[in-house]
Amino acid sequence: MRMTIVAAGRLKSGPEHELCQRYLKRTNWQITLKEIEEKQVTSPNQRKKKEAEKLLHAIPSSSYIIALDEHGKTMTSQEWASMLSELEISHSQIAFVIGGADGIDETLLKKAQRKVSFGKNTWPHMMVRAMLLEQLYRAHTILTNHPYHRE
Amino acid sequence: MRMTIVAAGRLKSGPEHELCQRYLKRTNWQITLKEIEEKQVTSPNQRKKKEAEKLLHAIPSSSYIIALDEHGKTMTSQEWASMLSELEISHSQIAFVIGGADGIDETLLKKAQRKVSFGKNTWPHMMVRAMLLEQLYRAHTILTNHPYHRE
Repeated sequence: MRMTIVAAGRLKSGPEHELCQRYLKRTNWQITLKEIEEKQVTSPNQRKKKEAEKLLHAIPSSSYIIALDEHGKTMTSQEWASMLSELEISHSQIAFVIGGADGIDETLLKKAQRKVSFGKNTWPHMMVRAMLLEQLYRAHTILTNHPYHRE
Repeated sequence: MRMTIVAAGRLKSGPEHELCQRYLKRTNWQITLKEIEEKQVTSPNQRKKKEAEKLLHAIPSSSYIIALDEHGKTMTSQEWASMLSELEISHSQIAFVIGGADGIDETLLKKAQRKVSFGKNTWPHMMVRAMLLEQLYRAHTILTNHPYHRE
């Protein structure tokens, strides 16, 4: 199973970038991080729409799309592991979508097969990227009985 | 209102440390980060107990204690802001407690006036520190109508 994280905003350095790189390297899944950038700042809504077009364009074809969305389902790390283990049987390509500062536009959200959330708190979208990669690493350790995760 | 974050494990460098420093600097509350270290590694339970003693010792006297605990209450960032705004009226000292890799020992959890959680997922305790500091910064921006937080 290949995974692609499609995210709004480019991170070339800084702590969030370092955290992403750490978990990308540690995880034994093939994960690609694709960043899109929308430089034309107009209204937040216009920006969301433009970002959605670029995000959609960056999603590999025939991907099972999982959107990170505040109204998505919250799951334990164990449930994340189970979800990924099940998807691995039926799908060869999964795409996680992380929007910009104002989230993901409705047009793109509708295309997602699944919406997931990291709880009630609002998190910076750049931090969500690192959080997602940590959860993917954790899920992998759960599925391979690596002692990283403790109940 | 003074806030103290009492946390298990020392972070001298690395991305989590940088994130903590970023939000510590940005937030207009007086926040102190106190790290304790338990080097004698015996059993996880023994370690938790030893850490709890040191964490308790590091909590300023007459603090209102809030424990970060997986079974704690999950709240939106807006609810975090409201909680802190209410506590500011009645308390001059708040202490947030973050345990080590195995959480906080029951003896210390019992002393907490409140238990809060960042959702169902399990997060690395070093990352929780950065997440807490970001939420405190976000709460401050919500209470001062700074445009950082968007609904």
